[in-house]
This record gives sequence, structure tokens and C-alpha cells, in this order.
Amino acid sequence: MASNSFGNLFRITTFGESHGPAVGVVIDGCPSRIKISEEEINQVLSLRQPGKTEFVSPRAEGDKVKILSGVFAGQTTGAPIAILIENGAVDSSKYEVTQDLLKPGHANFTYLEKYGIYDYRGGGRASARETAGRVAASVIAAKTLDHYKIKVCAYIKSIGTDVADINIKDIVALKEQVKQSPIYCPDEVSAKAMMTNIKKVQAEGDSLGGMVEFIIDGLPAGLGDPVYEKFSANLAQAMFSIPSVKGFELGEGFAAAKMRGSEHNDGYFYDNKTGKIDLTSNHCGGILGGITTGTRIEGAVAFKPTPSIYKPQKTVDVGGCEQVFKLPEGSRHDPCTAIRGVMVVEAMCVLVVADALLMQQSLQFGE
Amino acid sequence: MASNSFGNLFRITTFGESHGPAVGVVIDGCPSRIKISEEEINQVLSLRQPGKTEFVSPRAEGDKVKILSGVFAGQTTGAPIAILIENGAVDSSKYEVTQDLLKPGHANFTYLEKYGIYDYRGGGRASARETAGRVAASVIAAKTLDHYKIKVCAYIKSIGTDVADINIKDIVALKEQVKQSPIYCPDEVSAKAMMTNIKKVQAEGDSLGGMVEFIIDGLPAGLGDPVYEKFSANLAQAMFSIPSVKGFELGEGFAAAKMRGSEHNDGYFYDNKTGKIDLTSNHCGGILGGITTGTRIEGAVAFKPTPSIYKPQKTVDVGGCEQVFKLPEGSRHDPCTAIRGVMVVEAMCVLVVADALLMQQSLQFGE
Amino acid sequence: MASNSFGNLFRITTFGESHGPAVGVVIDGCPSRIKISEEEINQVLSLRQPGKTEFVSPRAEGDKVKILSGVFAGQTTGAPIAILIENGAVDSSKYEVTQDLLKPGHANFTYLEKYGIYDYRGGGRASARETAGRVAASVIAAKTLDHYKIKVCAYIKSIGTDVADINIKDIVALKEQVKQSPIYCPDEVSAKAMMTNIKKVQAEGDSLGGMVEFIIDGLPAGLGDPVYEKFSANLAQAMFSIPSVKGFELGEGFAAAKMRGSEHNDGYFYDNKTGKIDLTSNHCGGILGGITTGTRIEGAVAFKPTPSIYKPQKTVDVGGCEQVFKLPEGSRHDPCTAIRGVMVVEAMCVLVVADALLMQQSLQFGE
Amino acid sequence: MASNSFGNLFRITTFGESHGPAVGVVIDGCPSRIKISEEEINQVLSLRQPGKTEFVSPRAEGDKVKILSGVFAGQTTGAPIAILIENGAVDSSKYEVTQDLLKPGHANFTYLEKYGIYDYRGGGRASARETAGRVAASVIAAKTLDHYKIKVCAYIKSIGTDVADINIKDIVALKEQVKQSPIYCPDEVSAKAMMTNIKKVQAEGDSLGGMVEFIIDGLPAGLGDPVYEKFSANLAQAMFSIPSVKGFELGEGFAAAKMRGSEHNDGYFYDNKTGKIDLTSNHCGGILGGITTGTRIEGAVAFKPTPSIYKPQKTVDVGGCEQVFKLPEGSRHDPCTAIRGVMVVEAMCVLVVADALLMQQSLQFGE
Repeated sequence: MASNSFGNLFRITTFGESHGPAVGVVIDGCPSRIKISEEEINQVLSLRQPGKTEFVSPRAEGDKVKILSGVFAGQTTGAPIAILIENGAVDSSKYEVTQDLLKPGHANFTYLEKYGIYDYRGGGRASARETAGRVAASVIAAKTLDHYKIKVCAYIKSIGTDVADINIKDIVALKEQVKQSPIYCPDEVSAKAMMTNIKKVQAEGDSLGGMVEFIIDGLPAGLGDPVYEKFSANLAQAMFSIPSVKGFELGEGFAAAKMRGSEHNDGYFYDNKTGKIDLTSNHCGGILGGITTGTRIEGAVAFKPTPSIYKPQKTVDVGGCEQVFKLPEGSRHDPCTAIRGVMVVEAMCVLVVADALLMQQSLQFGE
Repeated sequence: MASNSFGNLFRITTFGESHGPAVGVVIDGCPSRIKISEEEINQVLSLRQPGKTEFVSPRAEGDKVKILSGVFAGQTTGAPIAILIENGAVDSSKYEVTQDLLKPGHANFTYLEKYGIYDYRGGGRASARETAGRVAASVIAAKTLDHYKIKVCAYIKSIGTDVADINIKDIVALKEQVKQSPIYCPDEVSAKAMMTNIKKVQAEGDSLGGMVEFIIDGLPAGLGDPVYEKFSANLAQAMFSIPSVKGFELGEGFAAAKMRGSEHNDGYFYDNKTGKIDLTSNHCGGILGGITTGTRIEGAVAFKPTPSIYKPQKTVDVGGCEQVFKLPEGSRHDPCTAIRGVMVVEAMCVLVVADALLMQQSLQFGE
Repeated sequence: MASNSFGNLFRITTFGESHGPAVGVVIDGCPSRIKISEEEINQVLSLRQPGKTEFVSPRAEGDKVKILSGVFAGQTTGAPIAILIENGAVDSSKYEVTQDLLKPGHANFTYLEKYGIYDYRGGGRASARETAGRVAASVIAAKTLDHYKIKVCAYIKSIGTDVADINIKDIVALKEQVKQSPIYCPDEVSAKAMMTNIKKVQAEGDSLGGMVEFIIDGLPAGLGDPVYEKFSANLAQAMFSIPSVKGFELGEGFAAAKMRGSEHNDGYFYDNKTGKIDLTSNHCGGILGGITTGTRIEGAVAFKPTPSIYKPQKTVDVGGCEQVFKLPEGSRHDPCTAIRGVMVVEAMCVLVVADALLMQQSLQFGE
Repeated sequence: MASNSFGNLFRITTFGESHGPAVGVVIDGCPSRIKISEEEINQVLSLRQPGKTEFVSPRAEGDKVKILSGVFAGQTTGAPIAILIENGAVDSSKYEVTQDLLKPGHANFTYLEKYGIYDYRGGGRASARETAGRVAASVIAAKTLDHYKIKVCAYIKSIGTDVADINIKDIVALKEQVKQSPIYCPDEVSAKAMMTNIKKVQAEGDSLGGMVEFIIDGLPAGLGDPVYEKFSANLAQAMFSIPSVKGFELGEGFAAAKMRGSEHNDGYFYDNKTGKIDLTSNHCGGILGGITTGTRIEGAVAFKPTPSIYKPQKTVDVGGCEQVFKLPEGSRHDPCTAIRGVMVVEAMCVLVVADALLMQQSLQFGE
């Protein structure tokens, strides 16, 4: 119900605006006796930190979390876990000049239409800054995945028209490659081309869209609840809750629409090694009937180009008068939101899996 | 929470299996004093009726609904509306022979993994038959849209590699064109090619995927609740709750990932006719920051090819023994699930809009 | 959210009006592979059947359920279980004469104020008839309790000013005594006095209030989720969802308000037999901090007198004109709603426990 | 679902332990453009401040809230409102000595059974300290009530065996009397007796239970959603979510169980002044069929005696060894939790009303 909450049993509620005192998250439903420290969360957050490279917004966030509740003596207690991330030094003065202008591609117009008011400072609630809380929460959620040796990895598949060539064998190696890349793209050659293009486009005062792919490995079969809480449906909602996302596909995705049943159907075989039934291929992307098959989840997420650009754009102000919107010099923004989106896609995958694991446990009646 | 329910305020709960006594839906939260009759629902259901053409499953459903509650003297009372659709004559004997085989592309394997049991008759709960309840519910939900003159239209965009050329001007005309087409494709020329191809593929014992597009017209700005109940996120979940859906995109969708900000951003202008601020283009597909802009919602949904095919497929039985699965002659199934998907996509759009309308009303504090 | 649903994981949605075609329930979240038959449910429903004795409404319901979904080959499948109870022969003509009168103590006034319309036939949605669905659902829910050997027993504690003297030792014996009593009161002597009084009051055209007590035995410690989903809070909501309930207390209840801490606090001891820590007394009624202690849950529920009486009452019609409301001769109603309330209190206890059991399982991370 | 959240549309999520860094609340679903300041919230919180009199715990909280989000330029924006209340100087050392003892009447045993771990410092999550977040949230919720001129007042009805004699005429006057009383009891004579008794019992190292009554005035008819979200059912859940509550009744409450229908039923009349239909009496306590009648809501809540007492009590430690628990000298606790409970009862009433108002607005389709 509550629009700022996600998940059924492992449930997060995020709060905070880009230029308010803090952003944060409350996690409700986290199992007890999970070991967690602020340091662990800080380490993951530092990966998404803007300011580290020229390819993400130069805002020096240097985020340090404070765990305010739900953790005692280094372990979760079952009580709600509140995590605070102070916004630190924010200078909202740059936003004052253009506070009354409707910013193309941004949400201030729709917030105004919905609420009759908007916080113009740094994107307010609609800022990608909100996602810091999700990433923080996912660090704790990931502990439940570790227990089952489930691994999640997201990465850049394309930026603009540059498409990476990625051949996934080992998810551990893949994660390492992603970590090494300044733009989270495991294909080094393509990554270079992407970075060159980003610089060029940036120099023109423009921005780029991109595509993020993700895989989830080691997931047991049987997760996801038909029919409206299908694993796939919850993933779709999760991905579309991320700012700038315009598309989501699973397995063959849109390509499946062009295939025949005989091509797309995955057969079954009995795996003597594992003693389990498995799929002979994975066109389905790890999900059938909304429930996990035990094969790898494979999905892709399309991010629109960052709406913040230096090129002047025609618009109006809140009163309807014609204006030209030009991003103030020195504004902080990402040239391609997909890059920082990688961390958020991964976080949302983790949250969907953690929730599905708890849901599935609830059904293990009498076992 | 409950996995068979959808919507927050206008909330449906569906039930029923393909070969059980009935499928149905309970609608909770429907405003009172809405005029509705069984006949109105029957008319819409008849549109999705298989058996009408050679392009959908020959199951002669002839669905007639019974409204069991929540309607008195032709009007909704505010009480939950239960609608029952009896399954009529179902012959499950054909399914007995193959009841222990894992059917490629179907959900019996995942249901088995999740629940330790599955209803093998006609796809059980995973059958598209479940969607009849959604369509029935959407007929009542649509009444709230009528009040605001909001219109929804879904149609076939492509089947296999045949892509329709659709130039939308007037949604009323479009809806009429869709209704006239045996495969719900408003481009008559493409539709012919599609139908020819369907027959050919069918003759080969195979099936086809397809793409459904939809538009929502007349939606006021301000609907949708950031951040996890974004209008777009709820649509995404809705679409992925439909059987066989593998992809969803909004506005430019995946194409946006290849665009620049200066191309993708929509400007604003003041419309002297309406006295409202409007967008100069609609790359965003009617949604910014998860909230409707007042422009047309435009989205696309990818359906995988029908998994039921006559070609023999390698598989195993529940015991892991190698088997060949061959659909029994005379089985009822659609050559392309996307075709019947058109009605379901439309129904889910209507349900998402109705819920968003009620949610938005709840915020109109003191007005 | 949805007002006609109850429970988080074991979730029921009821529908139906007193004089509509049917009442029913959809159960979502029931674990799979639970054995259940229509006959089992019919047997329990027959216990609450009015018409059996002169102490409950002479409506001859003779309820027979139809399970429409979610059960296959005698077992639950994990899919939603829809249960239908047809209303059979209903004669609404008696209600037509007084359809426009506001009935004292009834809900037609408040339904009118809320919805602008009401179904006047037999109490509509506000009728106790709605509770049949809950009782039916509780029969399936009870299977999860059986697994843990948890037992629930509700009974009449008082009717009017007659108070039963009940000394509970064995819940099995108690349940048998309750079953034997025409008014579900295990104290035979008091029951006689109660029945004499009921007849007297009935002859005067009046009705009586009563109090139902319940106990839950064998519940493990640790159920219930602080802080707003406390076991006690969910019980309280459950009880107040029953028509005619005006009070609920747990353990010492209102008497606790007059006690001192040294009297009310329960000590702890180590039980050598069970190898578990236990409470030395049970003033708390089986719950501390909203979580079960492992001791017996003890609660009481106050029912107001049946509002339907033959004595003439001053009222107005919907237009505000003064009228006298006199129940039509031959109307069916209970002289004391508490009597039939016994079954509903028991059903709600079972539903609260089943949900809490599943919730607790969801937290058993990695176990 | 989430156990630390309350409300459907006006939804709060509280977090924090007694001796952690902070307690707080996130409000989701608050309408936009409501004027609010930290100062307003501080003023209300100061009323519940322990340390003000000898009748409440001497903990000097001096709570000052920080609004972290959702408020911009003095108005709510529609975004989630996070409110933080730092716990200030907490000395947990006193709790270390007895950290392994099961404290009679407290929740550390049940938390241990549920979560396998408990935060022993100051009651942890089970502390009444948690309720500060609810009170803070209620200050904002109250703004929606002001709009409709709805007023809520709770007060002490009894402490131990001292029962106040309260004759309510004007809720404004009543609220003033409550505010003037050190123990929130509007009957000055009884209050004196209560205070004398409290001192006596305190001197004996013991504690007292008490009863809180509340009224809600000015509520429109038609609020509350049958059947499981009845206004009364939500109030019952709300009250039982408050620590130490053991009973709740509405209107005549338990007394209704002893009444006859002819006594309990409220008649109707047409009020020429207001032009509305009204009740001739209010035995129902303002609710019929779970929906508000427009008459005054009247309820009572029973609080058990504070479990923290200086008298030595037999118990065991977590290992099951016999121990004597004696509250350390200088521990901070209330002699009677009901006193501080007054503020929390009032807060929960406000939250239930605010949520019901928004729910009702959502149904005003097309108006």
C-alpha cells in the first residue's frame, strides 16, 4: 500500500530528499541474528559513490551510514533496522534561479500536478539520491542470499549505441570484472569506446542512455508467488521503481516475441551430478509461470538518457510563460544514469530475492 | 501480500483452475452506486472467447458470469463483488496420459518444485484461463475510467517477424479497428500476413510469439505514487503478471537506451486551448518520475510463443526418466498467446488506472 | 488494505450478503498438500447452523459448501481456495415493508451514510451470515494447528446476568462439554438458567447480550509480531471484526487495571519435565510484549444483545420522518448473538494462529 | 504486513529501541500542503515527557524532534516524512547486572523465544519509548482532523481501585482539565486520591494498573470499512498495539453483554437544527456495523500495572537457573503506565481517524 515501501516480508521503507538533512531506510521483517556492521554497508555504498570517476556525478557524497536501531551487539535483533545517511554539505542555491521552471525530462511538473508543491532542491524526492537507502538495505538482505550461496551481478550492457560483448561463465569472475571497470562494464574493449563517447557527448552538453543487464545465480527452484506476485512481476515492479527506467525484459525478452515455440521452449533432463531435474537451455531466463526454475535469472533494464543536460531547452515556468531551461554551470549530475543504475539494479534484485526466500519459508508448513 | 490479489484500493482477488468447477474474482474496494449488469460483463468476455476464430484456441468457453454479491438493484453497494465463471464442459482425460511429464515451457515443473504437487488438468492455476476473472473485473473498473473519459486500447503490434504499421490518431477509431480484426491488429495489411503465417506455423505443429502495444488516453496528470508504487512500476508488475509475458517497455522503452538527453527530453508549452501546461512531445510515454504527465500512456508487452506445440520435445517425467512430450491431438491451445493477451493487457491497464484514480482521490484532503 | 480480507500470509477474503445468491471465501496463502474435503467443512458448519435449537435463529440454512478451486485430489495445491455457500431459499419479502426504516441497533443507517445505498434484505453485508465464510476457512486453517497439536475452544461465559462457573482443566473435555450444550455453555447448571431466561426474554419480544470466552492451548512461545501486529493486537482486531462485539480482553483484562504489579506479574521457573522455561502463573493470558509465552491464551469477548427485537421502537425512515419499527412476525433472528458468536470467535482464533504460525516460519532463516 | 507499520493510507512505520541512538517514525501517505513545524511536535511530546512530575518515570527525555524529510518550506510535500527523536544520554549500565534474568511481566523472555536474542537495555524495542514516534506522527495526522473539526480526548478513568467521576459535556473544556492534571485525570477529587495512593504504592516498591477512556467528537458518519477494517476493529488493534494494554471496549462495552436489546438499541430522530438524522442515545459508542454513526466515539482501555517493581520476584535466568529479580535502585520507570498511556491512546485514536478519513475520500468516486 504505502508507496515508499517495497517487499512483503523483507520490507523496506525509504525516505529523504536529495537536499534535505538525510536520506535513509527502515527495514522491517529482517530475520534476527544476522551479523552486520556499518562498515560493511559503507563499503558497498562507496562503490556507487559519485565523484570517484569522471563518468559519474562529481557530488562528493562520502556516505557514511548510521544504524539507528534493530542491531545489537553486531547482530540483527528482529526489530526494525533504521539506517540514516546524512546528506552532508548540500548547496541548494544553484537550484533557486530555476526553481520555477519545468525541467524537461524531470519530475517537477508531475510532482506539482500531483501534490501542488515540489521540493526544487536537487530533484527532491525524485532524485536518484533516494536509491542510497535501497542499496544500504540490500547489504543486509544479501546476507540471507549468502546463506544459500545465491549471487547477483549487474553490469553495463550498452551505453548509447556501444554494446558490450559479454560471455558469462563464472559469476564470481564477472563480479570482479565489473568492479574493476570505472563504468561497471565487464567488456574492457567496449568499455573504452563507451568512455570515449561519454566524454564526447558530455563535452557537447548532452547525455546518454544505457542498458543494464543482471544475472542471479544459485537461486533454488520454487521461488515466486503466482499470480500477481510472480518472481518476474516483482522484479518488473522493482526495476520500474528505479528512476529513469523505461524497459525491462527477462530471458529472451522482446526477442521471444519473434521466436517460435519450438525454438523458445526449454527441454528438461536429469542431471546425474546434482541428482536434480534441470533445463537443457535457458530461454525462459530462469522463470516459468512466474516461479524460479533453478536456472540462472537473466534480465535487462533500459535507462533513458540523463535528463539533466547543458544544452538549452524550451520550456515554460509554473505560470505557463515560455522560458529556456539551461542547467546552471557546475551542476552535479551523471552523464549516463545507467552507470550508477548498475548498483541499484543489483540492490533491487537482492531485495526481491530476499523477500521471495522468506515468503517461500513461510509455506514450509510443518517442515 | 496475498499473491492472488492485485491493486491497493480497487483490489481484485482471482481464483480458479482451468479444469476446476469455475474461475472467478472478488473485487474489494469498488465505489458504490456504479451501474453494472452481468450482460455487460458477458459482452466483453465474449470478445476474448476462444473458439471464435481459427487464430485462438478452439475451446468453446461461452462464458457467462454470475454476480454473487456486491450488486443490488443494478448498482454496486460498496460490498465485495464476487463474480463466478463456471468452466462448463471440461474434458481432462487428454491430460491424464501426460500428467507425469514435465511440459517444456510450461509451469508444471516449477509448481511441483514450489508446492510439491500440481493440478495437471489444462494447465491448472497457471492456465491463461485465470485471466478471465481479471477481464470480468476490468469491466466494472472501466466504469470509473468512463467517468473521466479515460480510454484504453491494446492491440497486436507484431506476430513473429510480421510487424504492423500503426499510426494512431483517434483512440475511438483505433478501438473499432481492433475489434474488427480477428487477431486484434488494426493494420489490415499486416494482419493478413500475420494470419497467413499463423496458419503455416500451426500446420507445422509450432507456435508464435508476439508483441502487444497499448495506449491510455485522457488520463489526468498526477496519477501514480512514487517511489515503489509508481504508475509505471505498477503497470510493469501488472503486465508481468500475465502468463507468457517476457518484456515490458514504456514510451521509447529500450530505444531510449540508445538516445541522447537532448533527443529524449520532452519540452513544455502552455496550451491556450485547454489552459493547461502540456508536453511538446511524448518520448516519456506519458510518465515522468513515475507520475502521469497527462499525455498519452504508450507501452509495449512481449509475449513468448505458446509453449503448447505438436512437435515432439525431449523432456523427463517427474521421476527424472527421459521422455518425449507430444501434445495430444485435439488439445486446445492458442497458436499465439499474444492474440488473446490483447484483452488481458487492456484489462490490466484498466485495473491499474482505476486503482490509481482511487489512490489519488484519497489524497484530496479537505477538497 | 482490502477491508474484506483478513490475515497476512494465511489470508481470507469473504464475500456475500445475507439474501444474495451465496456467501463465500477465498483463502490465499494456504500451504500445499493439506488434506481437506467438503464434508469436513460441512460438519463444522452444521454446528453453527441456526434452526437446530430454539436458542438460535430458525433459518434452516443446511449449508453445504462447494470447493471451487485450490484443492486437487483431496489436497490443497497452494492455489487460492474458493469456497461457496449458496444461500438457498431466501424470502426477502418480509424486509420490503420496512426497507426504508432505519433499524435501531442495525447498520443500515451507517451503510447508507457510507455508501449512499444499502441492501435491505436480511441485513445485507452486515448480516452475521457473512461469518459462514470465516468458519469454512477456519476448518482448513485448523489443519496447520493440528500439526502442532494446538487446540482452540470458545464457549459461553455469560448470557444476560447469568454467569457460568467454568473450571478448565482439560481442553479436550471442555470442547466436548461445549458441543453437548445447546447454547455452547460447558456449565450445565448455569446453562439451564440461561436457557430459561432466554425463553422468558424471547416471550417478551426482547433479546440478550452475552460474553464468550476462549482459550488456545498448546501454542508455542514466540508467535506474534511487535509492535502493530502483536498477537494480541491481531486477536483484538479479529474479535472486533465480528458483528455485535463491543469488548475484548486478554488474561486478567479489565481486572488488571485494578491490580498491583506484584499481583499481576507472572514469575518464571524451569520445568524439568519439558526441559523448558515456563511461567509460574498466567495473569498475562499467554502473551507478553505482544508475543506468545507458551502458556494458554485466555480471552473474553462481549456481545451486545441482538438488535432485532419484536418490541416496537421509535425511529425514522431514510427521509427523516418519524416511524415505529416493529420486527415483522416470523422474522428469523437469534435471541442472543453471543451463542452463535461462539463458533465465530473460535474461527477467528484459528485464523489468527494459522497466520502467526506462517509468519513465524518465514523468519526461520536458514533453518 | 510489516509489523512495525500501522494504517493503510496514512501509514506510520516506527523504529528504535529505548537505549539505542534514537527512536523515530516514517509517515507515508500524508497529504501534501499541510503546515507543520518541529516546534509543534515538540510541544505535544513535552506533554508526555517523563520527569515532569513524580507520577511518571524520572527519565529526563527532553525530546526534540528532527524532521528529516517530507516537509519543505513549512509544508508537507507528499513525500515520506521521517521524524527522528534522539535518545540522548542513556545509561545502560544498570541493565547489565540483570541482563540474563527473565524479568517478570516484561517481554525479554518472549523476544528471546521469538528472535533468539534480545536487547536488554531499557526494554529494547518493547519499551514504551517506542510510542514517542506514534505521538510525533499523530501531531501531523491531527491536522487532517482539525480540518473537519474532529477532536480527540483521552484521560485517566481509574488507577487501581480509584475511579474518577467524569461527566463529559464539552470536549474542549475536558481537554483543558486533562492538561491541568498531573495524572491526566479530569476529576480533581479522584485525582487527589489516586496520587496519594500512587505515592503509597510506590513507597512499597509496587506499581498500579489503570484505565484510560477516550472520546472522539465531531466525526462524520460513514467512516470505517466493513468487515475486517471496521472502525472499531482498527481501534481495537490500535489499542492492543500499545504496551501493557489488556482490554478494550467500545460504548457500553462489557456492560452490553448484560443488557437487553430494548435497553441497548439506540433510536433515531431527525434533528431540525442540523438537518440530519441522529441517534436518540449512544449505547453503541458511535459505531454500528463497524461504521461511524456521527455520534461521539466512546471507548475504554485497560492497562496492566507497570511490571517494573522494586519488590524482589522469583524468576530464572536464560539458562533456567533460579534467580531473584530485583529492580536496580535508581531505575527509571512509571508507577502506573496508564498515565503516560493517555497520550498514546489519544495518538492512536488520531491515527485511526486520519486513516479512515483518507480511506473514505478514496471512495468519493467522481465527486
